[in-house]
Amino acid sequence: MDIARQLHDYRERVERGLATLLPPAQLRPRRLHEAMRYSLQAGGKRLRPTLVLASAELWGSKHDALPAAVALECIHTYSLVHDDLPCMDNDDLRRGRPTAHRQFDEATALLAGDALLTFAFQLLARHYRNHSTLCTALLTEFAEAAGSEHLIGGQMEDLLAEKKSTVTAEELDYIHLHKTAAIITAAFVTGGLCGGASETDLAQLRLTGRRVGLAFQIIDDVLDATADTATLGKTAGKDARADKTTYVKLHGLDASRQHARTQSDAAIASLAQLPGETNFLRTLIEQMVSRTH
Amino acid sequence: MDIARQLHDYRERVERGLATLLPPAQLRPRRLHEAMRYSLQAGGKRLRPTLVLASAELWGSKHDALPAAVALECIHTYSLVHDDLPCMDNDDLRRGRPTAHRQFDEATALLAGDALLTFAFQLLARHYRNHSTLCTALLTEFAEAAGSEHLIGGQMEDLLAEKKSTVTAEELDYIHLHKTAAIITAAFVTGGLCGGASETDLAQLRLTGRRVGLAFQIIDDVLDATADTATLGKTAGKDARADKTTYVKLHGLDASRQHARTQSDAAIASLAQLPGETNFLRTLIEQMVSRTH
Repeated sequence: MDIARQLHDYRERVERGLATLLPPAQLRPRRLHEAMRYSLQAGGKRLRPTLVLASAELWGSKHDALPAAVALECIHTYSLVHDDLPCMDNDDLRRGRPTAHRQFDEATALLAGDALLTFAFQLLARHYRNHSTLCTALLTEFAEAAGSEHLIGGQMEDLLAEKKSTVTAEELDYIHLHKTAAIITAAFVTGGLCGGASETDLAQLRLTGRRVGLAFQIIDDVLDATADTATLGKTAGKDARADKTTYVKLHGLDASRQHARTQSDAAIASLAQLPGETNFLRTLIEQMVSRTH
Repeated sequence: MDIARQLHDYRERVERGLATLLPPAQLRPRRLHEAMRYSLQAGGKRLRPTLVLASAELWGSKHDALPAAVALECIHTYSLVHDDLPCMDNDDLRRGRPTAHRQFDEATALLAGDALLTFAFQLLARHYRNHSTLCTALLTEFAEAAGSEHLIGGQMEDLLAEKKSTVTAEELDYIHLHKTAAIITAAFVTGGLCGGASETDLAQLRLTGRRVGLAFQIIDDVLDATADTATLGKTAGKDARADKTTYVKLHGLDASRQHARTQSDAAIASLAQLPGETNFLRTLIEQMVSRTH
């Protein structure tokens, strides 16, 4: 099967998983569940859940990884919904559609974000509780990756950095590693846990995820500086207008592209240490670095 | 030991648990961890964690219930921090001190709330992962109680009710049961899980918690209508000024007090079905209904 077809199939599985695993929109309180589904069904590349599924399949997926993949997408989406709020980035557009607080209202978006974060843990409980060792390992991975020392820590430092006149390369690395790489790393590790990976392989997945996450975020900065709003589906050039410190601002476009390439090459090298057929994941990582939106 | 002394001892344990189990305020990002600690260290009655500890001790506390008790207080506190935000209740005072968004800023309060919710799950993972069956049961209890069909659902309906010209008794019961009773119920059940309660006893704890939660919320409504701001440590009379539907508005003061008493009597009756020394819990429930702040 070719890569484009595989990618399509993974995304289809994720979309079906979202449609069936999320609380129905009619469930009381309806407005809350509608806002949760609205935020999650904005499409997008479904990169993180695809990484979970593809990573699990390196070991032949001992346990169904789909609920965990959907749970990770819930965490990613909650962080976007809260990040878009007026007190944070105050963004009107996300993937070409009104952000949750524009489509509904601020309070509903706040609660829908809270509910998506919580629902990720409900999914783990509902689908893995009969495999309590796996369930506990997934809980650990999710809670730490989403917590104040990773995802939320990265968002906080990002917010603080916006108010500073100078941001160092170390501070920017902290933000990227915590805000972006933490959840992408969790995606690889989650796949490994569902697949039944050894401790050694889990460590290799963690290394791969960290490198992919960094490459991904650097390319995000590059695209914000070079692509237009229609292509991105979100407001482009925002970083520069906000005088936000990005990889591009600190290191320039060429060095940023080069650094992303170095990270993705390193990710592919660590991926090669893993068992199973890694061809799909390797190509996905390569595409991620050469993407245009 | 007398009840006042026991209550004091439980609160001391909770305070020590909070001080030692929360991430240190110096941890990066410092502002985030300071805001988490600020929000949690506002004092308060520590009712929910006290219920966890006292409930666990009915069975002699097979597992240390303190991390779970602190985790539940984290969830309760996150819901207050988000509830106080400008887009929700827009409150300046909480337990006599500036609310988190007044003390820090809105974005920091938003993220500190997110981080407290997530930290509750980190605590479960960090302290119970070696007892994976218990850990999974606690995860289930916490995630469901905090989720869109319980705590957040109650907050959403509460928000929607404020915009309606009439709120029915059924709608108000939904709000109270979901917004308040869900977490108080989770406190009793969490204690039972840590103590090693049987399925039958867990069901009895759930029933007790629901009744205590309803009584507690009705008394909250009564106090908002009758007490002053200094006594409450939060803005009093807010419900009436906002023309908010409360038990008092729907049923009157006397009937509200009577209904709270009926619920607490029923809670005490279901408590009596449990093993162990229930004297402390019984007195605590009685005090809750006769409290003045």
